Amino acid sequence: MSLNPKRTIAELKELRALTGDENGAQRLAWTDTWLEARNWFKSKLDGLPVEHHYDAAGNNWVTLKGESEKTLLIGGHLDSVPNGGWLDGCLNVLAGLEVLRRISDEYKGKPPITVRLVDWADEEGARFGRSLLGSSAFAGTHSIEADRGRTDRDGVRLEDALGRCGVDINRFPEAAHEQANAAAYLELHIEQGPVLEKLGLPLGVVLGTKGVERHAITFHGQEAHSGSTPMTARKDALAAAAKLALEIRPIAMKHPDAVCTMGSVKTFPGIVTAVVGRCECTLDQRDLDAKVLAQMYREAQEASKHFAAEEGCTVEWSRIWNIEPIPFNPTLIEFCDQSILEVAGVSHRLPSGPLHDAAEVARAGIPTVMMFTQSLYGISHNKIEDTREEHLELAVPAFDKLADKTMHWIQGQNKA
Amino acid sequence: MSLNPKRTIAELKELRALTGDENGAQRLAWTDTWLEARNWFKSKLDGLPVEHHYDAAGNNWVTLKGESEKTLLIGGHLDSVPNGGWLDGCLNVLAGLEVLRRISDEYKGKPPITVRLVDWADEEGARFGRSLLGSSAFAGTHSIEADRGRTDRDGVRLEDALGRCGVDINRFPEAAHEQANAAAYLELHIEQGPVLEKLGLPLGVVLGTKGVERHAITFHGQEAHSGSTPMTARKDALAAAAKLALEIRPIAMKHPDAVCTMGSVKTFPGIVTAVVGRCECTLDQRDLDAKVLAQMYREAQEASKHFAAEEGCTVEWSRIWNIEPIPFNPTLIEFCDQSILEVAGVSHRLPSGPLHDAAEVARAGIPTVMMFTQSLYGISHNKIEDTREEHLELAVPAFDKLADKTMHWIQGQNKA
Repeated sequence: MSLNPKRTIAELKELRALTGDENGAQRLAWTDTWLEARNWFKSKLDGLPVEHHYDAAGNNWVTLKGESEKTLLIGGHLDSVPNGGWLDGCLNVLAGLEVLRRISDEYKGKPPITVRLVDWADEEGARFGRSLLGSSAFAGTHSIEADRGRTDRDGVRLEDALGRCGVDINRFPEAAHEQANAAAYLELHIEQGPVLEKLGLPLGVVLGTKGVERHAITFHGQEAHSGSTPMTARKDALAAAAKLALEIRPIAMKHPDAVCTMGSVKTFPGIVTAVVGRCECTLDQRDLDAKVLAQMYREAQEASKHFAAEEGCTVEWSRIWNIEPIPFNPTLIEFCDQSILEVAGVSHRLPSGPLHDAAEVARAGIPTVMMFTQSLYGISHNKIEDTREEHLELAVPAFDKLADKTMHWIQGQNKA
Repeated sequence: MSLNPKRTIAELKELRALTGDENGAQRLAWTDTWLEARNWFKSKLDGLPVEHHYDAAGNNWVTLKGESEKTLLIGGHLDSVPNGGWLDGCLNVLAGLEVLRRISDEYKGKPPITVRLVDWADEEGARFGRSLLGSSAFAGTHSIEADRGRTDRDGVRLEDALGRCGVDINRFPEAAHEQANAAAYLELHIEQGPVLEKLGLPLGVVLGTKGVERHAITFHGQEAHSGSTPMTARKDALAAAAKLALEIRPIAMKHPDAVCTMGSVKTFPGIVTAVVGRCECTLDQRDLDAKVLAQMYREAQEASKHFAAEEGCTVEWSRIWNIEPIPFNPTLIEFCDQSILEVAGVSHRLPSGPLHDAAEVARAGIPTVMMFTQSLYGISHNKIEDTREEHLELAVPAFDKLADKTMHWIQGQNKA
């Protein structure tokens, strides 16, 4: 059974038909549709000489035992956001399956090293607002006490939703056992951004995942009547926020790959006839360089204080979340670059703005790299998310070459 | 019974105790508390030689018949916003009552002209979003078909809420009969703004109510992932809105009394991890000069188109509401100025940014003027709304002098 990229595309479409509707993919983690996707995936393993089990965090491990216990990990996630795209997460799982088939076939079921394919549980965090849930348990960076009481919009607790799927959140730490013998981790993913499309390139090497500073910023001014309050007597919290919304752009654009986003603005009282007394906004800042990230955070804080003072307002910051930049393994980056060059003739290196399970695996100290395929329109988490099939047909063999190179690299380490 | 401003203050406090709570005044129109306030007011008429009735729109008319049918109208409103202040609206009613008592006393129940005190129904529009409801019925500027189906936040229809209070919206046009013989209209109100306080003046003459242009403005950009979308590849609807939020200020500040306010901004999808794809905001522009108002509206539109283009967005405008500037009567403005000078020694002329029932009365062609008392902190529609009692004690006699001058003016017209 040689590598068959068209089969990957056919299986992606089969999964879409099974677990999507007219609004897109509906494989929300810990729901029946997600379990159905996992059962369907299990059926695809029939005939392969693999063992499979779910770990303590619900990650699904498919193991092709090799001559050596040294292990190559390939991962993805079947879960999607509600009304999601047909490729986000499951491309990795099904391309990984195709690679596993090729390796099993080439080595007659016994490759020189062990190869494991993992379907991470709840990468998206779409239901409970906690992304990378399964991979964080694997990496030992879980936050059980903070997470168990999270509720979905129907009030169902995270702990209970997991329990219904046979997962006990108290046992999450046991998922770290799966790290044993892991020598490298590979993940293929759609870019979810416009960079490769703008460059006209099918594939790219991911240098790492950007660090993130995520904050809630509240400007406090003075609510006042829109008709009776002269312009010069106002303490307009929106004006201060508007200045910051514009200022974060030059702050980001000093650096080639940095991004700063104000994604949410809420005005209070938020009525047409009142000057805004309180303005709550969010700031998301990302860069692959920790120093750049720290500088942008500092500059945005200083700017916010300056604008608040200009407008007679005060400002408060509250960190929502942050993560350090996670650079990928230099050797694997080279392998990925070579694999893309061999298949597509041209490659490109770029950081990943979105987080991925690969970031958690890298934090666990396992050499990691990701490969991106071009996304159309830079759109993801939406039913119109798409990638040209000709690019998917390049992605599978390029990812397979990366797996092959990495396997031989691990094998060489083993001998040394 | 001579004019007793302290009684007015005592009655305002009595009303506050009866119809307010720890969060402020609760005399929301068409509720039991409002009806209770009206019953309380009715009890204050005992012993006065007046007739009173509710018109077809629920306005409460108290009539002191004079030698002539020519009529001086004095008006206010007992209804309040939820958690409102203790003076907004009811100061006018109770100061008007004190003036009525003085006139009745002075002329032994039969003044040379007829004097009527009106408590307008639902000035605030706080429950159904339709302000000046009763006075618009009086003026014949009602909008019955647009209003009958309005609902409050519990889903109760305006038509049904009125019906419960014995008011049939279909009979609104009959309220215009109350215009008969009206020769002038006077209204005392708190400023609801900071102008008199900043000038250290207790009282001011209102030149008219500013015209209003009120619009919903929507910028359409492209929702995109905050991590994967480079700064230069964004179509950020919030950025365009932020530029407009800042630009409306110089647009207003070219003119001495003009105001422009962006009171509400809503971001979509409005999450920390997405560039804003759609931004809905509101604009409220006011000036006493129709030409200035038209210029500001035009400039804001042009600016919004320019900013949308700069940000790769489009923009749509939708008029929420507008009203022309309504200048008050020049003779009554002079009377008001003289009355304030006689009582307080110093006066000031200013336009009203907020709308008032007086605007509707003026639109009906009845000579109208308003007097303002200083507001503390420029705050209204809030339980901390306040005015110094020494200023209230000046307001009542100044308003009484205005009523006296106006009565003699009407009387003179009658003779002529």
